[in-house]
Amino acid sequence: MASVSLAPAATLRVDFAATRALSVSLVAPLSDADASAQSMPDASPVKWHLAHTTWFLETFVLAEMPGYRVFDDRFGYLFNSYYESVGARHSRVARGLITRPSLEDVLAYRYHVDGALDRHWHALGAEHLALITLGVNHEQQHQELLLTDILDLFAANPIEPAMFPPTRLESVAVGNGWTRHDGGIVRVGHDGDGFAFDCEGPAHEVLVRPFALADRLVTNADWAAFIADDGYRKAALWLSDGWAWVNREAIAAPLRWQHGNDGWTSFTLSGRRSVDPAAPVTHISFYEADAFASWAGARLPTEAEWEVAAQAHDAGSGNQLDRAGPVAPTGTASLFGDCWQWTASAFLPYPGFRPVGGAVGEYNGKFMNGQMVLKGASCATPRGSSRASVRNFFYPAQRWQFTGLRLAREL
Amino acid sequence: MASVSLAPAATLRVDFAATRALSVSLVAPLSDADASAQSMPDASPVKWHLAHTTWFLETFVLAEMPGYRVFDDRFGYLFNSYYESVGARHSRVARGLITRPSLEDVLAYRYHVDGALDRHWHALGAEHLALITLGVNHEQQHQELLLTDILDLFAANPIEPAMFPPTRLESVAVGNGWTRHDGGIVRVGHDGDGFAFDCEGPAHEVLVRPFALADRLVTNADWAAFIADDGYRKAALWLSDGWAWVNREAIAAPLRWQHGNDGWTSFTLSGRRSVDPAAPVTHISFYEADAFASWAGARLPTEAEWEVAAQAHDAGSGNQLDRAGPVAPTGTASLFGDCWQWTASAFLPYPGFRPVGGAVGEYNGKFMNGQMVLKGASCATPRGSSRASVRNFFYPAQRWQFTGLRLAREL
Amino acid sequence: MASVSLAPAATLRVDFAATRALSVSLVAPLSDADASAQSMPDASPVKWHLAHTTWFLETFVLAEMPGYRVFDDRFGYLFNSYYESVGARHSRVARGLITRPSLEDVLAYRYHVDGALDRHWHALGAEHLALITLGVNHEQQHQELLLTDILDLFAANPIEPAMFPPTRLESVAVGNGWTRHDGGIVRVGHDGDGFAFDCEGPAHEVLVRPFALADRLVTNADWAAFIADDGYRKAALWLSDGWAWVNREAIAAPLRWQHGNDGWTSFTLSGRRSVDPAAPVTHISFYEADAFASWAGARLPTEAEWEVAAQAHDAGSGNQLDRAGPVAPTGTASLFGDCWQWTASAFLPYPGFRPVGGAVGEYNGKFMNGQMVLKGASCATPRGSSRASVRNFFYPAQRWQFTGLRLAREL
Amino acid sequence: MASVSLAPAATLRVDFAATRALSVSLVAPLSDADASAQSMPDASPVKWHLAHTTWFLETFVLAEMPGYRVFDDRFGYLFNSYYESVGARHSRVARGLITRPSLEDVLAYRYHVDGALDRHWHALGAEHLALITLGVNHEQQHQELLLTDILDLFAANPIEPAMFPPTRLESVAVGNGWTRHDGGIVRVGHDGDGFAFDCEGPAHEVLVRPFALADRLVTNADWAAFIADDGYRKAALWLSDGWAWVNREAIAAPLRWQHGNDGWTSFTLSGRRSVDPAAPVTHISFYEADAFASWAGARLPTEAEWEVAAQAHDAGSGNQLDRAGPVAPTGTASLFGDCWQWTASAFLPYPGFRPVGGAVGEYNGKFMNGQMVLKGASCATPRGSSRASVRNFFYPAQRWQFTGLRLAREL
Repeated sequence: MASVSLAPAATLRVDFAATRALSVSLVAPLSDADASAQSMPDASPVKWHLAHTTWFLETFVLAEMPGYRVFDDRFGYLFNSYYESVGARHSRVARGLITRPSLEDVLAYRYHVDGALDRHWHALGAEHLALITLGVNHEQQHQELLLTDILDLFAANPIEPAMFPPTRLESVAVGNGWTRHDGGIVRVGHDGDGFAFDCEGPAHEVLVRPFALADRLVTNADWAAFIADDGYRKAALWLSDGWAWVNREAIAAPLRWQHGNDGWTSFTLSGRRSVDPAAPVTHISFYEADAFASWAGARLPTEAEWEVAAQAHDAGSGNQLDRAGPVAPTGTASLFGDCWQWTASAFLPYPGFRPVGGAVGEYNGKFMNGQMVLKGASCATPRGSSRASVRNFFYPAQRWQFTGLRLAREL
Repeated sequence: MASVSLAPAATLRVDFAATRALSVSLVAPLSDADASAQSMPDASPVKWHLAHTTWFLETFVLAEMPGYRVFDDRFGYLFNSYYESVGARHSRVARGLITRPSLEDVLAYRYHVDGALDRHWHALGAEHLALITLGVNHEQQHQELLLTDILDLFAANPIEPAMFPPTRLESVAVGNGWTRHDGGIVRVGHDGDGFAFDCEGPAHEVLVRPFALADRLVTNADWAAFIADDGYRKAALWLSDGWAWVNREAIAAPLRWQHGNDGWTSFTLSGRRSVDPAAPVTHISFYEADAFASWAGARLPTEAEWEVAAQAHDAGSGNQLDRAGPVAPTGTASLFGDCWQWTASAFLPYPGFRPVGGAVGEYNGKFMNGQMVLKGASCATPRGSSRASVRNFFYPAQRWQFTGLRLAREL
Repeated sequence: MASVSLAPAATLRVDFAATRALSVSLVAPLSDADASAQSMPDASPVKWHLAHTTWFLETFVLAEMPGYRVFDDRFGYLFNSYYESVGARHSRVARGLITRPSLEDVLAYRYHVDGALDRHWHALGAEHLALITLGVNHEQQHQELLLTDILDLFAANPIEPAMFPPTRLESVAVGNGWTRHDGGIVRVGHDGDGFAFDCEGPAHEVLVRPFALADRLVTNADWAAFIADDGYRKAALWLSDGWAWVNREAIAAPLRWQHGNDGWTSFTLSGRRSVDPAAPVTHISFYEADAFASWAGARLPTEAEWEVAAQAHDAGSGNQLDRAGPVAPTGTASLFGDCWQWTASAFLPYPGFRPVGGAVGEYNGKFMNGQMVLKGASCATPRGSSRASVRNFFYPAQRWQFTGLRLAREL
Repeated sequence: MASVSLAPAATLRVDFAATRALSVSLVAPLSDADASAQSMPDASPVKWHLAHTTWFLETFVLAEMPGYRVFDDRFGYLFNSYYESVGARHSRVARGLITRPSLEDVLAYRYHVDGALDRHWHALGAEHLALITLGVNHEQQHQELLLTDILDLFAANPIEPAMFPPTRLESVAVGNGWTRHDGGIVRVGHDGDGFAFDCEGPAHEVLVRPFALADRLVTNADWAAFIADDGYRKAALWLSDGWAWVNREAIAAPLRWQHGNDGWTSFTLSGRRSVDPAAPVTHISFYEADAFASWAGARLPTEAEWEVAAQAHDAGSGNQLDRAGPVAPTGTASLFGDCWQWTASAFLPYPGFRPVGGAVGEYNGKFMNGQMVLKGASCATPRGSSRASVRNFFYPAQRWQFTGLRLAREL
């Protein structure tokens, strides 16, 4: 995997252990039933995330180790996701019917694999370490999905369970400024040390025109103004597919917003709570982000514009995994740690992109169609996995992730 | 509820306690996750069955008792099934997303309601006792559904869990005779002492022509011959809607049959097992039953024919609830205790039928459209709930119940 | 075809010629495009009706005549309807894409077949004459469908074309009485001279309880009262499947009724017109008929009740084919000629029913599932094809035919 | 409409007349029924194309002329396509049910509008002339759709009508070379004299890396090799969404290809004909184009790469409207006139793109989501409407247009 620069093995071993442990600690508040249910085809059961990330390590690393014995022959079929070349797999839409193996069984699977990897650690070659690095980052992605998927499940339950206790969040005042960029030929994509997913490269030059990027994210107060101005009812603001979606699905607010006597509430990992006007809006689709930008007389930034603006910032500082939802931005940027930010760019290969060979190579390239790029990192993104070059991607109608937006405009 | 003749209250108290206990004992092999999942819209989670039958008692009996305090205000919304007049209810197709309350919570709900009923027992009037009698019979119906629904769930799991250990079943030789009936004006429907559902009455006279009824049920060996003769591929044998169903769903055998090197196997509550040629075929739709009868040069019996033939038999003796699946018939009749038997009759009201007033009256009358009557009782029907007048009913394509057939012909 | 008593051949030749000519005259107001379009899967293009009835004669009669040359080899595939045993056929839902052969081509096909039959008439045997008799009656059924299907097509066109000029209809006062019947063993089904479809027999005895049948049909004024009393919004009146249908399809009035400043209008073959309060309501589903009867404190008659009451009447007198829609009943009965009347009976085989052998035998038996019987005849039923024993049948949600109801009650 | 450079009014008058006449001449072989049917939701009836393009002129130009009288008030509802701001419109999927107005009525509509425009021509201002220019180009687009839509309709007819007589096409030998381009900052988008659609601008600079573009289009022979090598069965070649599409729709060849004893045939506007190995492949989806490129070890060109390569060529010379299908390329380029060529670029706004204000502004911007850009022009594109800057766009699964591909690769 030529595009991956390895962390030294010692650091990797710590990262590996910490990531594996974090997954387990995340599910502590959950029952066997909570961990087994699937709220919709886009989401997966918590138990599946725990097992799939383990299967990845077992299949791509451990299976080659001498003397390793597969934990359970049937798990390959159950916990493969989309790797066509590794064999048949269980139907995605029926993952919620797998009540056995139980959560306890899956945790035993994890300890089995973790222990085996630990025992073989000294024998791992560079390629294995690269795969484990990939596995750690892959698991971090699933940690975020685990949180958004359990949130979606609990939101579908009329009794509205809370996963975490409510935390007191302090909103911080933030400016309304725009940061200008002169454009020109800029370099984007991953190019340095450290891990990156294959789709983040090759680094390459792009010609960017002068632009301005908003210093802050669009807030819930902004969004309430959009709603109050009938933004969801003005066809001229919407893309054609978006307008059809709004009408077909009767969309009138971000996902899980409800309006009551005390104003807007939203369902969060801490249960139903009042919407904080100063916090960034989340759980909106690309269609909504695009319509809002039109309404605001602005546009979404392109991926390159966002990335160039972010290259000067420290991605690591904004991590928010221990919070139940987005909070008001604590700086002028909020590039990382509040929400994923929709861009105007389709998720397509960078010039010169070549998928990695073999089964692992099915990783990102096969999704380069029909989806839009999101940049940044959300409150559910694990600490340490944020980079300016990260390319997250979803279909334009999806909004069960912590998705928001930042405006841009021409100069 | 004029059509219900009460059992004496003392007997009822024993029946009530036994029925309530049986439900709990049935779920002993199941985990919280097993009890929470829903395999398809027709089925419900085990936990839902446990709670819904409890809600029925709480809502229609306990709610009127002085000083009774509802266990949880939110359960009415969650565990109402189709009683429109009792209020809003949770979407049927999303029952599998209710991971909380847990199985443990639901069991606590049961003990709360059982205890409260016990404390109020001395104060219950005739109408309350009638409702409890209805509740007991209602719960017995759900005990059967609980078993068929968990079977459907486990069948959808590639690792094919078994709920019960395999039991050794002894097949018994059975004749191929036909019992003749001279026809004439006969009396059908419930008319005596003891409980019956509203749709079983009024008892009334019907003019029946001479007919013959097969002494035995159609067996798996019979069905294998039908398959071997391309029965599923001969359009002339099928009703038009049935033929469309066979082709659309690619139906080629009873539900969950698979053909391997060792012949046919079927998935049962004891896991996947060889199909016993001498046992009655089950898990077939009305369409299949009708096509088989055409292939055999016979027809399905009407409801009245079946009931007249069964009136002389003791319905109680055939109960099989402790078995994991149907076994070979142990007598010439097999009217009760092996499988529900499709008839040629649509589920329509008997002459003079009037639904009971009030919410309970929504019970059966509103389903009198588009479904076919099944007579008898299956291996999953609780002991003591069988009667010749029972009218079970399902849509013609449904087959996740223990459904089979018995042939009839003209004289 | 044992159940068919033949009309003498001479009469048949006149009936044949008249029926064939009537079909052609019906389409005189229609363009090639009108005749080619299909408004929904339940309906067929006018051109298809013209060709299919011709294909029936060509395939089952002419094909056996020495020296007969098939008009066009490709028409068998295009104009077969559901006769599985005659070979492959064109998809029903795509009939509206067959813009060629043109209406003119199809008329040429008709003349070719009519001429050939005329030339072979002297050589036709009894079986051929029986098939032609069937063909005449089959074509009469399609004449009715032709009218209801073109009505459905024009109703889907925002400019609302009229097929016929408006006619002045005179409403006639009618009583509100009930005719009592003492019940007992009665004989129903076709048993005498003259043609009948296979499903009308065998004639057989049925035990009927005393009942009363309304002297008149339910009128538009009655229906407006049902609507005004929120009949479409009271769940307790509806069958479960019906209630789901009402909500899913947002049903709030008979098909094509609209409410404006001047009250209710309906779209007819003479365009949009005011609803006549005294005329029978039409274009209602079985679900609506059943809910109305519940609302009125009555019920639908069974098929046997209706037929017994009708046996004394002259079916031929009520024919209304030259009218654009139902009119107020002109007698106490209105059994025939206004609208088809939903009954409480499912369309199931009569005792001893055996489908005719061969391809023609696919005729009615294969539809004996999931549909309800309608009795009588509508304003679009050709003169001379009405009988008390006729069993029309449709699915409970269908209502593009001229369907109405008459009430019954217990005595 | 700032981005449109006008042709002088005199030339416009000639272009207008020629374009309007061409539409009418195209439908000469069609009947009223042919012109009224709609084969699928993506397609429209021929009659609708004729009327919609006329409605465009009437609504945006004539409606403002003093004394102009709208031809028929109801046509606005029937023949509006997607202009939300102009008012309600008829459901797209039901266009095939509009059998009236007839083809003759629609032709009368055309003559009415053409005559009125001619009478008002001297009074037209610059803005009106710009709108007529847009109308001419808009009609040219619909001329192409008219041909592809009638082809789709005839292909759905089992008797496979031919619109045009077969023509003898001569295949021409063509090289297998690649033309190299050094990359750098290039200028793309419409920027000169003459008409262009809004989405073709603003012209802007793009940084392009060195690349090579195939001298020829991919041929039917190439495609047959892809099929023979199981290209449709190798998951690794396909995008994830594409692989799901191939399996769901059972795709195994280009649209309308059939394999028989004499090899591959395809259905064309001249009926079913043998596939010419030397001709460009057409009627393939983006998914297929992308998979083929992977199989060939190459990739699709980006929009900018294609456009830069095409800027030196004369777009006008390749027009093929009078041919019934694509022929072998007659030069090294085949950039225009054979088929639309899928690119690797999503259809997104160019930097600085602003939709035109008002209803006309709904034109292209609202479709900038989820679709891929195609460059060039097909055999059905009207002569004179081709430009290197044209951006055609379709969803990745659509293939009823004349769509093919040309390979590119890195240097």
